[in-house]
Amino acid sequence: MAVFKNKLKEQERELGFGSKNYAKSVRFLDKNGKVNVQRTGLGWYNNTDFYHSLISASLSKLILIILGTYVLINVLFACLYYIIGAQHFGGLDIPGSSKSQEFIGLFFFSAQTITTLGYGHIYPIGNAASIAAALESLLGLLSFALATGVLYGRFSRPKAHVLYSKNILISPYRESKGLMFRITNKKQYELIESEAVLTMTINNPETNKREFLNLKLEISRVNFLAMSWTIVHHINEDSPLFGLIKNDLLERDAEFIILIKAINDTYSQNVNSRISYKANDLIENAKFKHLSPEATKEGKLKVSVTEIHHYDLIENATLNQKPT
Amino acid sequence: MAVFKNKLKEQERELGFGSKNYAKSVRFLDKNGKVNVQRTGLGWYNNTDFYHSLISASLSKLILIILGTYVLINVLFACLYYIIGAQHFGGLDIPGSSKSQEFIGLFFFSAQTITTLGYGHIYPIGNAASIAAALESLLGLLSFALATGVLYGRFSRPKAHVLYSKNILISPYRESKGLMFRITNKKQYELIESEAVLTMTINNPETNKREFLNLKLEISRVNFLAMSWTIVHHINEDSPLFGLIKNDLLERDAEFIILIKAINDTYSQNVNSRISYKANDLIENAKFKHLSPEATKEGKLKVSVTEIHHYDLIENATLNQKPT
Amino acid sequence: MAVFKNKLKEQERELGFGSKNYAKSVRFLDKNGKVNVQRTGLGWYNNTDFYHSLISASLSKLILIILGTYVLINVLFACLYYIIGAQHFGGLDIPGSSKSQEFIGLFFFSAQTITTLGYGHIYPIGNAASIAAALESLLGLLSFALATGVLYGRFSRPKAHVLYSKNILISPYRESKGLMFRITNKKQYELIESEAVLTMTINNPETNKREFLNLKLEISRVNFLAMSWTIVHHINEDSPLFGLIKNDLLERDAEFIILIKAINDTYSQNVNSRISYKANDLIENAKFKHLSPEATKEGKLKVSVTEIHHYDLIENATLNQKPT
Amino acid sequence: MAVFKNKLKEQERELGFGSKNYAKSVRFLDKNGKVNVQRTGLGWYNNTDFYHSLISASLSKLILIILGTYVLINVLFACLYYIIGAQHFGGLDIPGSSKSQEFIGLFFFSAQTITTLGYGHIYPIGNAASIAAALESLLGLLSFALATGVLYGRFSRPKAHVLYSKNILISPYRESKGLMFRITNKKQYELIESEAVLTMTINNPETNKREFLNLKLEISRVNFLAMSWTIVHHINEDSPLFGLIKNDLLERDAEFIILIKAINDTYSQNVNSRISYKANDLIENAKFKHLSPEATKEGKLKVSVTEIHHYDLIENATLNQKPT
Repeated sequence: MAVFKNKLKEQERELGFGSKNYAKSVRFLDKNGKVNVQRTGLGWYNNTDFYHSLISASLSKLILIILGTYVLINVLFACLYYIIGAQHFGGLDIPGSSKSQEFIGLFFFSAQTITTLGYGHIYPIGNAASIAAALESLLGLLSFALATGVLYGRFSRPKAHVLYSKNILISPYRESKGLMFRITNKKQYELIESEAVLTMTINNPETNKREFLNLKLEISRVNFLAMSWTIVHHINEDSPLFGLIKNDLLERDAEFIILIKAINDTYSQNVNSRISYKANDLIENAKFKHLSPEATKEGKLKVSVTEIHHYDLIENATLNQKPT
Repeated sequence: MAVFKNKLKEQERELGFGSKNYAKSVRFLDKNGKVNVQRTGLGWYNNTDFYHSLISASLSKLILIILGTYVLINVLFACLYYIIGAQHFGGLDIPGSSKSQEFIGLFFFSAQTITTLGYGHIYPIGNAASIAAALESLLGLLSFALATGVLYGRFSRPKAHVLYSKNILISPYRESKGLMFRITNKKQYELIESEAVLTMTINNPETNKREFLNLKLEISRVNFLAMSWTIVHHINEDSPLFGLIKNDLLERDAEFIILIKAINDTYSQNVNSRISYKANDLIENAKFKHLSPEATKEGKLKVSVTEIHHYDLIENATLNQKPT
Repeated sequence: MAVFKNKLKEQERELGFGSKNYAKSVRFLDKNGKVNVQRTGLGWYNNTDFYHSLISASLSKLILIILGTYVLINVLFACLYYIIGAQHFGGLDIPGSSKSQEFIGLFFFSAQTITTLGYGHIYPIGNAASIAAALESLLGLLSFALATGVLYGRFSRPKAHVLYSKNILISPYRESKGLMFRITNKKQYELIESEAVLTMTINNPETNKREFLNLKLEISRVNFLAMSWTIVHHINEDSPLFGLIKNDLLERDAEFIILIKAINDTYSQNVNSRISYKANDLIENAKFKHLSPEATKEGKLKVSVTEIHHYDLIENATLNQKPT
Repeated sequence: MAVFKNKLKEQERELGFGSKNYAKSVRFLDKNGKVNVQRTGLGWYNNTDFYHSLISASLSKLILIILGTYVLINVLFACLYYIIGAQHFGGLDIPGSSKSQEFIGLFFFSAQTITTLGYGHIYPIGNAASIAAALESLLGLLSFALATGVLYGRFSRPKAHVLYSKNILISPYRESKGLMFRITNKKQYELIESEAVLTMTINNPETNKREFLNLKLEISRVNFLAMSWTIVHHINEDSPLFGLIKNDLLERDAEFIILIKAINDTYSQNVNSRISYKANDLIENAKFKHLSPEATKEGKLKVSVTEIHHYDLIENATLNQKPT
């Protein structure tokens, strides 16, 4: 199930893999643009990329992981210090304190050591305690080096905050029709040199196999994504969509896969974004409404990005464009 | 209002968006090359990229943010410690000290904890105080990890220090004329493989709509940007500028949008730079002066980059180039 | 021994280098895709890139290096402090302690200083001790800055976790045969825009020289590497493999060199992967088995990546594809 | 003095800049591949990129800068603490200590504060001292964040360790001659997808102006740079070098500018390298010697990279290649 760029239809049929006709409930991409495949077979360790998992985990999950690791390591070192003996820690061995009090005190000593805080009201006495503390502070610094890397990697990761129109439309276009959707940039920084690729995956009723077809775009690259970009596939005689209506697409379980590639101007980094529309996201005989940017007092154009979702249904008779 | 690369004029008219004729005061790009659009509609949180804001904020603003956050967090923890009780902090509970004195003391203890300074002349006693301090030192390390990332991201961000000539000229070129501007590199490192794209946005008096037109460049790529690069659009019969004079461009509110892409040689990073000239930045019948680099004793060529702004007005009769 | 992209055979013969016929035991790439060349001649220092070595060392080796350096620096500073004199360190100069006890105490003081732990139960007295401690803490911070960089560089390094089929097959393909191998992505993140280049290096029995030949691929680029990708070179009359059987390839010591280039979608980074197959990795008259992904309850496709190794031997008679 | 890619000769003459005929002592690139231009005119601050300077400074210079800054900041804070008064620092105000002793003590306290070491045998008393210390520790953390960034940026900076042959040769090539030089990779990691561009800058005796001419390469890209790559410009009738001998090139002050672009395989980063040969680096009637790699016991090829400098002078009669 590799998706080919500019592949001939003929070639695909002969590749002999990935053309299985899955149940209709299976999407190729899920709603967030993630490829809907779970890879196994090498064991959990080899199928996981830990740095990647930390980078892309939710913020709350990351905080829990960090906090949990912090408590765990401190408990482990508290145990170690406890084994060494509370009497080897100055300022801790208060006469009359219970065993559990001692352990808690060693836990706090561990926390003060791993963060290199080192108040010093508790301090190691003797070789074993000093060696353990020296190792813990080294471990602390390396752990926080790792945490620094993960946090930096997380926040500096190139992201394409692309907003896609909720629906994909079949609109009047030139003398025939066009498949259209709109994208915009959600954030204040700029996306430049944006490129789009549109692929359709559909069951072929003749062969009962799944095909991946490239849909040619009228314009596949823009220099600026200042407001919005309507991406158009002309449904002419060369188009695999020619003559099909929504019901056909539903029946053949069509899925439209979109790849957007751009340069995040702030970091000069390439960013990628994906989405897929299923056939039931398709609206026939509809037309996107124009955006209505307003000029602010400061001479800026203010635009509400959610306007890209808006469309008008049109009657079949009015296939020619009217100014709005 | 997406700007298309190499788009046919015909196609644009049929896209049906972004061709609204805005008030003349609206620039597409502001003087610093920022796209003049403010995006709203998803709420402040979703329309903002915080890391990006910190990376691109002014230095003084960033210092204020860091200092403000530092004071705020210390005040919050001082409150927490105060609630726990000043008697749980050794070295602080000086007999006869006022409530406000205690609070200030806890504020300083907080500062010594969050930075992992930990002098130890004030130290936590008991579980509540120790837990709060352990958490604060963890928070401190993570915050400074974030600050490290922001500072690194800020300083290592690829930047193209391109200097543009103040004006864009219409000069004699070949047997006719050329639209010309000059760029140079302000800094000591090198920019290599520089590329330029020149787009004009102009009102079409016939349709009363705004058009975006690509202006073909004589040379659109240079290997080195050692001294300066004069970027030339030949105004021949194929040019949309053919036959237009400055007054026409003023009337039709022309704006020249320039995109420069290069590789910063030190970091091998792609960098981007943008600028726009309005019609009133245009000088007709003028010619850029040659730069006058001097050979230094060390065998280097010394050049003053501001010389790229200099031009000579020429009389109509002297359209042929003379050696200077 | 540079390998050329799309080079003509004729040109190679005339380049006059790198065509020496090495012993058969020499592989161009080793099993892990590393180029099998050891570069010398500039001295150990100039032929080594230390950052690179640290980044690509095994985890256990890196831990040893860090631990060893930590102990070494502390021993060196303990020596320095010992020379300055134990009497210049408060809290250490316990009456009756032996020389070696003093040294060990100074070692622990050094560890508490370089990590900026600073409990303070041992502290410097006088100028020499204070200066040494001030320098050690500076050195400590810079060292841990370096360690942070190495750890970050190590974990954020773009990696392509490509799994290659164990064998390269000669399978029925169209009306003739094809050279085929399969790749897949081991990890959960996505690889996009994958590209493959296949080169064969083989002894030319006529000239007794080694040649590098590009083998044309049916499809050399895929948008997604969702499940697996079977990379196919059609052995038709234009192929240098036309008419050769495994024994010929063994005799001429053929090696198939594969370069995979892709974009790691999480980081938007380019990643590279390499492998080589020797002639004895080749299986004639075999065909890859289809993968058998299962749809999970959550609507995901679950696939075991090790299935890409599986193939069926086929009898010569059954050269036409049968559905499996 | 911008150098154009694939520019027509005709175009260059008409660009009207950068064609000044400089003194012969002026090189376009210096021996290390740095562009030989010093940019001024915007003031020292605006013509300098500080991060870039720190990244590319020599190691000894960087250590001096860091050490100097460390001492300077500590002196400044010692002054501040001295103004606040030594009596506000516990553990310092030893009866009978001199003013200078106090200052030195405050200097050490500052060092313990800025590194967040905080032994605590000296500690701030009162608000002014505590505020100053809290600010210093914040400043310390931010400074070391900066230092971490600079060190990481420095060591992770993509570098192309390309070694160039000392000379550029005119060798027999095909039925005529070729301009040739060799490159190799000095380090153990791999360079892949290497590309070369060769430009000649030469005085045109007719116009007395300097021209930049692209010299076409036989092969301009290799997939691997495993051993060495001999880069060849065929001096045929289309070459601007056709019919010229070394004396002509010396007279016209020819300089050969080479740009190498590759991907450092460890980091998947693009790297760039440059060099220039002057006419007196040219050897006529010479031929590079073959490298002599040896197969090691481990099956590796061991090659001494400095062998790329070696060439044999050949007599005019023996223009045809002989096996060596």
